[in-house]
Amino acid sequence: MKKVELIDILKNIEDYEIIGNKNYFISELLPVDQAKSTSLVFIDRSSHEKEKLILSTKAQVIICDHEVKKYNVKNKSIIIVKDPKLAFAKIGNSLFPKKEKWGKHPSAIIHPESTIHPKTYIGPFCYIGNGCEINEGSILYGNIHIYDTMVSIGKNVIIHAGCVIGGDGFGFIKDERGELINFPHIGGVVIEDNVELQVMTHVDRGALGNTIIKSGTKIDNCCHIAHNNIIGKNSMIAAHSMFSGSVKLGDNSFVGPSSSFRDKVKIGDNSFIGIGSLVVSNFANNSNLMGNPATTIQEFKKMRKSIKKQMNGNEKIKDR
Amino acid sequence: MKKVELIDILKNIEDYEIIGNKNYFISELLPVDQAKSTSLVFIDRSSHEKEKLILSTKAQVIICDHEVKKYNVKNKSIIIVKDPKLAFAKIGNSLFPKKEKWGKHPSAIIHPESTIHPKTYIGPFCYIGNGCEINEGSILYGNIHIYDTMVSIGKNVIIHAGCVIGGDGFGFIKDERGELINFPHIGGVVIEDNVELQVMTHVDRGALGNTIIKSGTKIDNCCHIAHNNIIGKNSMIAAHSMFSGSVKLGDNSFVGPSSSFRDKVKIGDNSFIGIGSLVVSNFANNSNLMGNPATTIQEFKKMRKSIKKQMNGNEKIKDR
Amino acid sequence: MKKVELIDILKNIEDYEIIGNKNYFISELLPVDQAKSTSLVFIDRSSHEKEKLILSTKAQVIICDHEVKKYNVKNKSIIIVKDPKLAFAKIGNSLFPKKEKWGKHPSAIIHPESTIHPKTYIGPFCYIGNGCEINEGSILYGNIHIYDTMVSIGKNVIIHAGCVIGGDGFGFIKDERGELINFPHIGGVVIEDNVELQVMTHVDRGALGNTIIKSGTKIDNCCHIAHNNIIGKNSMIAAHSMFSGSVKLGDNSFVGPSSSFRDKVKIGDNSFIGIGSLVVSNFANNSNLMGNPATTIQEFKKMRKSIKKQMNGNEKIKDR
Repeated sequence: MKKVELIDILKNIEDYEIIGNKNYFISELLPVDQAKSTSLVFIDRSSHEKEKLILSTKAQVIICDHEVKKYNVKNKSIIIVKDPKLAFAKIGNSLFPKKEKWGKHPSAIIHPESTIHPKTYIGPFCYIGNGCEINEGSILYGNIHIYDTMVSIGKNVIIHAGCVIGGDGFGFIKDERGELINFPHIGGVVIEDNVELQVMTHVDRGALGNTIIKSGTKIDNCCHIAHNNIIGKNSMIAAHSMFSGSVKLGDNSFVGPSSSFRDKVKIGDNSFIGIGSLVVSNFANNSNLMGNPATTIQEFKKMRKSIKKQMNGNEKIKDR
Repeated sequence: MKKVELIDILKNIEDYEIIGNKNYFISELLPVDQAKSTSLVFIDRSSHEKEKLILSTKAQVIICDHEVKKYNVKNKSIIIVKDPKLAFAKIGNSLFPKKEKWGKHPSAIIHPESTIHPKTYIGPFCYIGNGCEINEGSILYGNIHIYDTMVSIGKNVIIHAGCVIGGDGFGFIKDERGELINFPHIGGVVIEDNVELQVMTHVDRGALGNTIIKSGTKIDNCCHIAHNNIIGKNSMIAAHSMFSGSVKLGDNSFVGPSSSFRDKVKIGDNSFIGIGSLVVSNFANNSNLMGNPATTIQEFKKMRKSIKKQMNGNEKIKDR
Repeated sequence: MKKVELIDILKNIEDYEIIGNKNYFISELLPVDQAKSTSLVFIDRSSHEKEKLILSTKAQVIICDHEVKKYNVKNKSIIIVKDPKLAFAKIGNSLFPKKEKWGKHPSAIIHPESTIHPKTYIGPFCYIGNGCEINEGSILYGNIHIYDTMVSIGKNVIIHAGCVIGGDGFGFIKDERGELINFPHIGGVVIEDNVELQVMTHVDRGALGNTIIKSGTKIDNCCHIAHNNIIGKNSMIAAHSMFSGSVKLGDNSFVGPSSSFRDKVKIGDNSFIGIGSLVVSNFANNSNLMGNPATTIQEFKKMRKSIKKQMNGNEKIKDR
């Protein structure tokens, strides 16, 4: 990254106040405790050691919330905003745009019966199948396979390397001889606007209807989104999570990594599912889940406590 | 899908009886409760609401079992079979064949020392390594990597996009300086007839012998089949399951998603392993397992009940 | 494998003693109980049935430890070493070298702003991005994607097919409208000398700093190494393990398959984490962990015992 004038950076944020020298430049983004004199840093509004961080960092340009006014900061440029992490993210995203150029890598293969907006990026070794539709602003990094099924990708979607979209669901039926034959999977996949699928996530096509990931949802590395899932809006699903067929996840939910969902379960909006949960039954909106099998966090804690109490009781009896 | 005459569809099934008009056509397959007038639908023989579904569906062509005769259905074409879902699957598979053309995508790279039957399909960005053998009717979708090891693929095998076959097993040994060196993995992989590996499943080569997946077995997305596994016939393994080295799974078994198997465990035929099980010991034929670590389902339920009872007991004591 | 003279094989090991005929040749490596007369085999020093194996194997060339001297072996060539498995591994690795030729497969795409040592191998359908550095002796098998981030790969590193390196970490922040925007991920990835990443492992770039895998560490298939992880030296991480962001794993540790680590946890050196563990808190050096959530193995066993005791107690009460 080259030197950037502080004044140019500030164009990316609104509602700020600046204290000190406005003529600094920055040449890298670093965590506040690892900064150099040329770094841009931020101090999270939830930090318990704002004073210490501000006084000790080598950075000369610091984004902080209004509390900074309590401290006696000299020879620095302090940018005061309501949410320093958000302001830092906006500046970072503008300095390091995801893609500077649109287009198709020469090695990518795009089926002639697909519809690709010219303002998209299709990276190396991507195969984009028959009937696929990719809308404005979307980025497909590379080594991605999209089947010849009806895969519809919205605007400003990011699909990371190694993803596979539109494979058959896992549906088989025994025939008269006891052999497994495929149940037809002829549905499609709908990925709405602003979705991000990180590295190696795999989304299967629906059996008869579609698999749907609603707008704004972000899915981490190597998650399994099975046939006929309906994943709500603005949710986050962390790495290695596994959704069986026909699961429905609500909006604005968070799924911790390494979670698993049994087929057909329904989880309401605004839910939180802790790391490593095994979800085998339905839960309403605003659920807060944990465990194997998953229960509410209150229930989970009570159960752990009971087990420990029992164990310690046994210990005492043994010790007598 | 274009319009298809009912009479042409019926060529795909045997032992049916037809009630009503035989001159309908269909133009899509849909679930019975989402059908249009031009849809082909089926009603599962285990359904508890056959009458309601038959009388309310918009579809004019319905596959159902003999119970339909109880109801007063008019102006429909009713196809009566023993197993409606199976008949529907057979019709669907004939209308949507996996591949209409055999051949090799121009971007695929096939090692000259491999043996590929002309009636196979090798998709885009596949690498087929030295010594690989692929038999009649097999389909490799795309972005698949088969190592330069002895990988043998039977007839009518389906390998989905992103699979990797023939990588080294995870075997290392400490040398005199305490550094990890590879234990040689020089075995091959044998994938028998009618196996299906879904998206991103990875099968490692054996150390000295082979890794074997027996005929008719279906493996869902992103499963790990480690070195020297022997996976039985006509089994189903659901997504994100992990088999450590030298595991032996029997025939006709079902492994739920997100299951894990410790190295060297042996599971008998006709077994059922529930979602998220952690299998660390051997189990005989006809085992029905669940839990972390996995036990029989009876034991699992007893344990859960005991934990809950204890917890509720504690609660009551506290409430006094 | 062609016939190899015993005398040529012995060049690969030191400190051995040989009993019997030195003029044998071998033509394959096999497990001792599956050997032919032309096989090279070894008997592990921990075996409890050395005598039986030595007297019953068909192999004529056997690597064994000094205990073999107790038995009356005739017409064989016995190679006596301290660690037979290690000697066998060294011989196997020399007979089956990972790569005989260096170079780049014609289909691989290498960004002009990367630095690749001529003594490396870059396989089919690899994309090596901007700023990547790959040092002497490293092998990248094929269908690998390295992002245009600062990915540094040391000497004698092995990266297996399907790996993806340098994708964004999973970091998002809600903006004023409640929508998730990316937190900038602009760090790199450092993979030190002698690391091996097996099939489909995915290593994300750091947010502001780097993700680091230290020298000699081996990672099995389809593991998730998230942003800003620091993975110690000479550790082994088995298949399907999932490390959330900013985890620190010590040196010389073993992580069992299907393990998960919550973000920011720290695990000390020389630790052992059992299969399927869910690690949500920090543990010191020499920890021996197990369970969901993970505790020490002693604690885990005590807890299991207590649950079973309670369960059996309940049973007895019911039986009365």
